[in-house]
Amino acid sequence: MLGTLRSIKAMAILAVAALVLTCAAAFAQTDPLPSWNESKPKQAILDFVAKVTREGGPDYVKPAERIATFDNDGTLWAEQPAYFQLLFAFDEIKRMVAEKPALKGKEPYRSVLARDLKALTADHNKGLLQVVAATHAGITTDAFAAQVSNWLETARHPTKQRRYDEMVYQPQLELLRYLRANGFKTFIVSGGGVEFMRVFAEKAYGIPPEQVVGSSGSVTLRSGADGKPELLKQAKVEFIDDGPGKPVGINRFIGRRPILAFGNSDGDLQMLQYTVAGDGPRLALIVHHTDAEREWAYDRASHIGKLDKALDEGRAKGWTIVDMKADWKTVFPDRP
Amino acid sequence: MLGTLRSIKAMAILAVAALVLTCAAAFAQTDPLPSWNESKPKQAILDFVAKVTREGGPDYVKPAERIATFDNDGTLWAEQPAYFQLLFAFDEIKRMVAEKPALKGKEPYRSVLARDLKALTADHNKGLLQVVAATHAGITTDAFAAQVSNWLETARHPTKQRRYDEMVYQPQLELLRYLRANGFKTFIVSGGGVEFMRVFAEKAYGIPPEQVVGSSGSVTLRSGADGKPELLKQAKVEFIDDGPGKPVGINRFIGRRPILAFGNSDGDLQMLQYTVAGDGPRLALIVHHTDAEREWAYDRASHIGKLDKALDEGRAKGWTIVDMKADWKTVFPDRP
Repeated sequence: MLGTLRSIKAMAILAVAALVLTCAAAFAQTDPLPSWNESKPKQAILDFVAKVTREGGPDYVKPAERIATFDNDGTLWAEQPAYFQLLFAFDEIKRMVAEKPALKGKEPYRSVLARDLKALTADHNKGLLQVVAATHAGITTDAFAAQVSNWLETARHPTKQRRYDEMVYQPQLELLRYLRANGFKTFIVSGGGVEFMRVFAEKAYGIPPEQVVGSSGSVTLRSGADGKPELLKQAKVEFIDDGPGKPVGINRFIGRRPILAFGNSDGDLQMLQYTVAGDGPRLALIVHHTDAEREWAYDRASHIGKLDKALDEGRAKGWTIVDMKADWKTVFPDRP
Repeated sequence: MLGTLRSIKAMAILAVAALVLTCAAAFAQTDPLPSWNESKPKQAILDFVAKVTREGGPDYVKPAERIATFDNDGTLWAEQPAYFQLLFAFDEIKRMVAEKPALKGKEPYRSVLARDLKALTADHNKGLLQVVAATHAGITTDAFAAQVSNWLETARHPTKQRRYDEMVYQPQLELLRYLRANGFKTFIVSGGGVEFMRVFAEKAYGIPPEQVVGSSGSVTLRSGADGKPELLKQAKVEFIDDGPGKPVGINRFIGRRPILAFGNSDGDLQMLQYTVAGDGPRLALIVHHTDAEREWAYDRASHIGKLDKALDEGRAKGWTIVDMKADWKTVFPDRP
């Protein structure tokens, strides 16, 4: 009898201990956004997530409808001194010339090697479009993904000396994780090429390929050398997921209006407008690049990531403007 | 002391009871596919799912890569006597004439009312394309979704007298659930209109809008009457997600090759070929409509859902051909 009681008691203690540990974990007040300073944007995010997840509350949103869309360049990772995809294309041109020196004197190779941006952008960006065609077309989707992957392994940012996939913003990584932990489905909606971003989005952001919306070129099906079907990338532009294209892309790929959208430039304005135009609680956020020391400072006059109309409209309508210098404790992740 | 012991004992009993219940539920040998007969296709599905989910096994596939794609018309729901989306369009034409009798004498209204299919299909389906334009364009995406939703509530299938969203296949509902319970992400990849299917896919199949890939028309952003942005559907066809378009659509919307694909017609052939061409374990399945009594019997000679080349290739390559009459215990779900 005593033995039985003892074993019952032991079991009870174990059961209670398990319960206590579980509750302790659940109630631990760990900060989900440690790289955000204790300023307005962080509070706006915490308040929004609290209200849309409060079951029975007036602002409750079902998990299936908790769609959050993020621009990529300048919102999830940096975009200076140029969009990283363009830097990838330039690096590819150099690699191609190294492999086939005969290309050296031809356009657009010559202008890329000479860093002649004026020549590349002349005649409605004719040279740049040739660069994109040379590096993004006439290649299978699988081979292209392998090129991007190789580039990410070997290339380094010209001034920060980091891998490009380490030029992501630590506060945004925390935000993405926090949203997903609260039942949100996180999407990229970016002007960048969809097949470029899909190579790193899962590892860098935890966003799987099927949740990446971007610009794209035509792709055609053909029978490969081994008789197996393969997909060939074409130079023809199919969809530009920027400006008014963003709500169109959201409708096409997601089919549901986001309740939260995060951008950083005028190219995100229509996505933000479309997001807040829905019924119920909505959160529109903008990264304002104000940190010349840790990152870059630019807005209205910038060629890349110009933030002008969206800044005015965001301020007028009470959107959440994130001042990088003031609101982010950390910009880039610690290097491993 | 006795009181303490008693309460400890009570707690222990509760803890053990909870444990027993949990284990019992986990070990209960409930059949995940009760509407499938004990024939080859069911075994092929069970074997495939067992091997790709066996951690450490040679055919293990990570959950993120467990992508399953399903055609819709003829694979997840019926498609006779015509694709249901076309029946929707005809019903819409009738509704429009009832609301605006002046349309009665005009084309394509006249031919639809007269059931004059010859007139509608003359001159490269000119009339049918007019029907699609009249019912699928010049309307916002939100208004279109509301029309489809209203139609589903009121329309009944001409011979089966069921709601159209009750013309789904019970064995496939079980299969979708079973795959998801085993970490698969289930997608529709169909020639049907994406904005048509998204209205019912979540409720009917448990497939959310963002996992529906289909054909689409152009959509443009405009400022609505209330100044809010809205999306207007255009008559211009943008993408046909059929035949060679299916691998292209999978690449564009999902960005990952499926490991399981299910179709029923030659329009699914390229999707099935693309699926099995990948490395590692793959499962290609075809519904063969052989059941004139419970559903319909058709294949090589059918105008709708023609199954000819894919049947030959499937048989030659050992794909799983589901003989509806022999392999499905039930076809449609019990009516509520």
